[in-house]
Amino acid sequence: MDFETKLDRLAEVAVKTGLGLRPGQELVMTAPLDSLPLARLITRHAYKAGASLVTTFYGDDQATLARFELGAAESFDTAPAWLFEGMAKAYGAGAARLAISGEDPALLAGQDADKVSRANRARSKAYQPALQHIVDFHINWSIVSFASAAWARMVFPDATESDAVMKLWDAIFAASRVDQADPVAAWAAHNARLHDRKTFLNEKRFSALRFRGPGTDLTVGLADDHEWAGGSEKARNGITCNPNIPTEEVFTTPHARRVDGFVRSTKPLSYQGTLIEDIAVRFEGGRIVEARARTGEAVLQKVLETDAGASRLGEVALVPHSSPISQSGILFYNTLYDENAACHIALGQAYNKCIIDFENKSEEQLVEAGANRSLIHIDWMIGSGEIDIDGVSASGETEAVMRAGEWAI
Amino acid sequence: MDFETKLDRLAEVAVKTGLGLRPGQELVMTAPLDSLPLARLITRHAYKAGASLVTTFYGDDQATLARFELGAAESFDTAPAWLFEGMAKAYGAGAARLAISGEDPALLAGQDADKVSRANRARSKAYQPALQHIVDFHINWSIVSFASAAWARMVFPDATESDAVMKLWDAIFAASRVDQADPVAAWAAHNARLHDRKTFLNEKRFSALRFRGPGTDLTVGLADDHEWAGGSEKARNGITCNPNIPTEEVFTTPHARRVDGFVRSTKPLSYQGTLIEDIAVRFEGGRIVEARARTGEAVLQKVLETDAGASRLGEVALVPHSSPISQSGILFYNTLYDENAACHIALGQAYNKCIIDFENKSEEQLVEAGANRSLIHIDWMIGSGEIDIDGVSASGETEAVMRAGEWAI
Ligand SMILES: [Zn+2]
Ligand SMILES: [Zn+2]
Ligand SMILES: [Zn+2]
Ligand SMILES: [Zn+2]
Repeated sequence: MDFETKLDRLAEVAVKTGLGLRPGQELVMTAPLDSLPLARLITRHAYKAGASLVTTFYGDDQATLARFELGAAESFDTAPAWLFEGMAKAYGAGAARLAISGEDPALLAGQDADKVSRANRARSKAYQPALQHIVDFHINWSIVSFASAAWARMVFPDATESDAVMKLWDAIFAASRVDQADPVAAWAAHNARLHDRKTFLNEKRFSALRFRGPGTDLTVGLADDHEWAGGSEKARNGITCNPNIPTEEVFTTPHARRVDGFVRSTKPLSYQGTLIEDIAVRFEGGRIVEARARTGEAVLQKVLETDAGASRLGEVALVPHSSPISQSGILFYNTLYDENAACHIALGQAYNKCIIDFENKSEEQLVEAGANRSLIHIDWMIGSGEIDIDGVSASGETEAVMRAGEWAI
Repeated sequence: MDFETKLDRLAEVAVKTGLGLRPGQELVMTAPLDSLPLARLITRHAYKAGASLVTTFYGDDQATLARFELGAAESFDTAPAWLFEGMAKAYGAGAARLAISGEDPALLAGQDADKVSRANRARSKAYQPALQHIVDFHINWSIVSFASAAWARMVFPDATESDAVMKLWDAIFAASRVDQADPVAAWAAHNARLHDRKTFLNEKRFSALRFRGPGTDLTVGLADDHEWAGGSEKARNGITCNPNIPTEEVFTTPHARRVDGFVRSTKPLSYQGTLIEDIAVRFEGGRIVEARARTGEAVLQKVLETDAGASRLGEVALVPHSSPISQSGILFYNTLYDENAACHIALGQAYNKCIIDFENKSEEQLVEAGANRSLIHIDWMIGSGEIDIDGVSASGETEAVMRAGEWAI
């Protein structure tokens, strides 16, 4: 199968499996300029699927760098709130949302850290009205990746740039199942398997998960009324979508005040251009009370100080060590991929939708149930072929969930 | 001077002369994807001038064509109202606005006319909230052009594509005065000359203009309290901008109910991919009662039926036959250029700002004064080296304004 065919199939998977786009639906897309060929194919598949209108916002790394090079220092708290309010209005009126990701992971690595953090903070804040429609699944949405040269160079530093880009595309195509005979059918089968796992875990109603392995003995309490998610999701508009292409995880909301023990990261974390390696932290009562890292420790400490919720967990996710992305052996420096290579936890904001009946609960009730609150949500990997996981019931009985990194259920 | 230098100077003229961008101002830009090099240079000059944030919306002709090829017929009344409302919010909060134009003039030439007109109508309607800030000069704004391959091929059909693009760039650079020693100073001098003309005409307070030449004897009544405009404009936010780069015209609002006689077009009108040539119309009491054209007559008739104001005038503009754009002898198939090559009139919407003290007049008062209302505003050329124009006073006395296409004042 040639490159063009696979790229076209990725676009088709994005529209059909990722979004489940409905005839008559508007589509709002964000895409880096370099992803233009993929964005155009997605546009075509969206119109074929009956989109009433596709509106794409192209982002330009050069424009971002020009701002850091030439912009006035006092301007970095400015963000386009009016645009995100407009997007929120579109989502409120039923538009679907697709993001193409794959930008240079180190784009801002050499820039002034204060400007970077102010710009990110302003943008995160301004983005809230639009983001709320997405994280609460008011609408069908999805993220797919493209292989930018900058990202490919980072993943395959020893290959020539064109080889690196093709290797990365091959990894994206494989992980997105577009090299299989019928990609949309392959996704349906994969979703069915993920749904079986999440149904099993939801019926068990564990009180906590206990992770054990080299340098790790961590008990992660699960939120009251937690609900496991994974694979396709039915959005509140009634449309079933796959929010991440690819995805291998089942995940839920931990209890922000019931996490204890110590844990080590099993893969490097790439955070805003900094590589944070060999993280080792200790939790008491849900909070990280001790944190070290072999590289990037200063950045990690700064992250933990973002706000009160930054040193507590907002997600716990299970991924078998045999997952295709894990087996590829590639470190992607990209959460969408690396979080699907291993069991992981996330610092910061919890997903409301991983609490049963969240739409009818108040903010106070959600926080009381254990949902963490923060401006950040940063996944890092704690799974490997050496990790055992037990489910712990409310009465303290344990049951094997994973053994040596594989499902035991 | 090499190409890169001239392109950079065009970007500088756009920011300094076109927008007069102020430190701390946000900039909202719209640009075709093919104009990326110019858009990036404008972004750099905007940040150098102190822009707090530059947000660019790239338009993609391929996406537009995909919609016409694949989109559902019932979807063509959809427009991104949420986006234009967002832009209106940005302008309301003080953002400046720059448009880069130069798209393929014949992009939609082969498409279903009903879909084209429905899509345009929906877009025009949705765009109103944003457009109002622009046409009423609440903010500083400007339009500049770039030489797309499609446009260049149309203007120079006998040249190779790369030659055609370079010839068109040279024409753009010359008309935009960036090949002069100090482009920003050259614009200041040009603005001073245009201001002298408009001051003269404003002091005359003509009741009408009478155009005479081959196939033309047209009396265009001027709106009560009309005001002539041209060159740089002071926006209500206190910033002086040049809304069109280039510009050679002085113009005002005709009286929608006082236009009589007949008139012939002197250059082809390119409207949404159709060439309308040799237009000949007759006015009675402000309204076109008879319209013919050698080519594109069906499209012209359809335009006139858009709404009640589409067959009345919203603008009359004076441009000497010796203007540099006219002297270039090039037919640009682009209103920004061709309207600056000849005296012209426009069907449709009038500019409120060409009525004295418009901000303190009600919609009823503006319409009573003669300001036309329509969803369209289409300029077409009626000037040439053979046209004489007289100013007519309220008491019926006449005075030469132009003779054989040149200023007589
Ligand atoms: Zn996850
Ligand atoms: Zn996560
Ligand atoms: Zn004009
Ligand atoms: Zn006009």
